[in-house]
Amino acid sequence: MNFKLSNIIPKEIIPGYHAKMVHGENMSLAFWDVEKGAEVPAHSHMHEQIMHVLEGSFEFTLSGVSQTYESGDLVLIPSHAVHGGKALTACKLLDVFSPVREEYK
Amino acid sequence: MNFKLSNIIPKEIIPGYHAKMVHGENMSLAFWDVEKGAEVPAHSHMHEQIMHVLEGSFEFTLSGVSQTYESGDLVLIPSHAVHGGKALTACKLLDVFSPVREEYK
Repeated sequence: MNFKLSNIIPKEIIPGYHAKMVHGENMSLAFWDVEKGAEVPAHSHMHEQIMHVLEGSFEFTLSGVSQTYESGDLVLIPSHAVHGGKALTACKLLDVFSPVREEYK
Repeated sequence: MNFKLSNIIPKEIIPGYHAKMVHGENMSLAFWDVEKGAEVPAHSHMHEQIMHVLEGSFEFTLSGVSQTYESGDLVLIPSHAVHGGKALTACKLLDVFSPVREEYK
């Protein structure tokens, strides 16, 4: 099965966070366009997550520690770790999750 | 834990395929720089894989069907599906695997 990112309709999962999603059997990819200033409140989930900043400047807090990430940065978010963030500029992010984020389908 | 792609030392996993790897508990990301003309022979593995073409033109054969993929294209490769490919130009690819590719560590 194949996909073109340009053909995937984005969903606004939380205000200012627009995701194009690709789901496999064991993992989900979320390509985010994030509006400047948009915040994702601290939360956690059983899914392991790897966040990759593609463009922009994203302030991210993992287990209470905040840091600013930019293009080329990756953060490994263990299962159940509390995390949240704020787009300091408009951002493009890629999140990879395992297992699948069923609620994003 | 966090990483900068620019700080990761690439490994040439097969000739012409240079990967910067990030491993979690349940998944591995491989950021490939592929030399023009480099081929990966048909193979299979138990890991599910999602291939994402970042740059270039990559001829990919999945379960006997060949197609050329370019920037923005994604291919879902089910567990145990036979696949291989050839870089028609120099390419940048991202592969996501679950579970972890232990042999790439």
